[in-house]
Amino acid sequence: MFLGRVMGNATSTVKHPSMEGWKLLLVMALQADGKTIEGDPILVVDSLGAGKGQTVMITSDGIGARELLGNKNSPVRWSVLGIRDP
Amino acid sequence: MFLGRVMGNATSTVKHPSMEGWKLLLVMALQADGKTIEGDPILVVDSLGAGKGQTVMITSDGIGARELLGNKNSPVRWSVLGIRDP
Amino acid sequence: MFLGRVMGNATSTVKHPSMEGWKLLLVMALQADGKTIEGDPILVVDSLGAGKGQTVMITSDGIGARELLGNKNSPVRWSVLGIRDP
Amino acid sequence: MFLGRVMGNATSTVKHPSMEGWKLLLVMALQADGKTIEGDPILVVDSLGAGKGQTVMITSDGIGARELLGNKNSPVRWSVLGIRDP
Amino acid sequence: MFLGRVMGNATSTVKHPSMEGWKLLLVMALQADGKTIEGDPILVVDSLGAGKGQTVMITSDGIGARELLGNKNSPVRWSVLGIRDP
Repeated sequence: MFLGRVMGNATSTVKHPSMEGWKLLLVMALQADGKTIEGDPILVVDSLGAGKGQTVMITSDGIGARELLGNKNSPVRWSVLGIRDP
Repeated sequence: MFLGRVMGNATSTVKHPSMEGWKLLLVMALQADGKTIEGDPILVVDSLGAGKGQTVMITSDGIGARELLGNKNSPVRWSVLGIRDP
Repeated sequence: MFLGRVMGNATSTVKHPSMEGWKLLLVMALQADGKTIEGDPILVVDSLGAGKGQTVMITSDGIGARELLGNKNSPVRWSVLGIRDP
Repeated sequence: MFLGRVMGNATSTVKHPSMEGWKLLLVMALQADGKTIEGDPILVVDSLGAGKGQTVMITSDGIGARELLGNKNSPVRWSVLGIRDP
Repeated sequence: MFLGRVMGNATSTVKHPSMEGWKLLLVMALQADGKTIEGDPILVVDSLGAGKGQTVMITSDGIGARELLGNKNSPVRWSVLGIRDP
């Protein structure tokens, strides 16, 4: 679980059925200063309505992600856990 | 889950039985610019028909991969989640 | 599982219901000298009362974290395992 | 899952009982050129007979590894998924 | 799973109840030469009696660790799999 900045999203027409109706956010990890981004972008499902530029808490837990999507066989793992208060 | 570029595939005659009939794609992670690749290639199972040069969303979730292969004991973890729209 | 230094915490009003009433610590990994911090901050749930500046042992195990929160579908993974003796 | 080169193996007399009769291969990750090795060596169980110098596909999936060893409580995670065709 | 050198241990009075009576080893990853250590120290539970300076095989598998501790809800993940023969 770490803090990240929402950079935008990625869309795909050809995808796993469990992702139907879900958008994937592109999130970059934030360093200790809370401002600098680094590394490769992570793809994250979001049910909290996070928007571009917001700071989010993200997690790699598959059980939570499958519960979120309502699909026990979904291969999705990363999801937004919370939106950090400004 | 992250974005990657399909570089080709890897074939093996001697392999785990759950991989019979499946090809493994070689995928490189994409940086934030969506163009630069980096790191080591990841091996990924694909049921969506992704081709060389395409940008794919990949995931490391074992439960989803075993469902895809229809084999509860498969050691496969990485799979293609979607093909990014051009 | 590794040693980290508690740098502070992160609050969010909009979050997964399993996190209601829990604070998330911001923890930085400690190098072998036990003093130098490095990498990106990790978000960790804590039931042991760890405070800013303390050295903690943290773990990424989702099963333990869900037990801690009393929520089988929580996407939380990282938790404090112990506070290192001074 | 990634490609690696078999560098040799590691033996231990004092070990977890589930590893009795199994050898652990030392495998180094291969970069995109399929030749350069890098990073730290990974320890991998093998039932396919991979030999020193061969290129293998390896995976970190614990469920598959426990099935391979026939031991539901084994802490082994990494195994050889296939031997890459020359 | 990889090879590491035991550097010492970490003690904590305030900790998860599943860790009562267990010591946590501090282990550094070994590079391909089997001598050079690198990265951050990992915390590992040990039932095999590994001592300072020994080379151990360690694993991140939570199921094996929970079996070792006899606690189904323990958040412990890393354990010693074997002590490498000298």
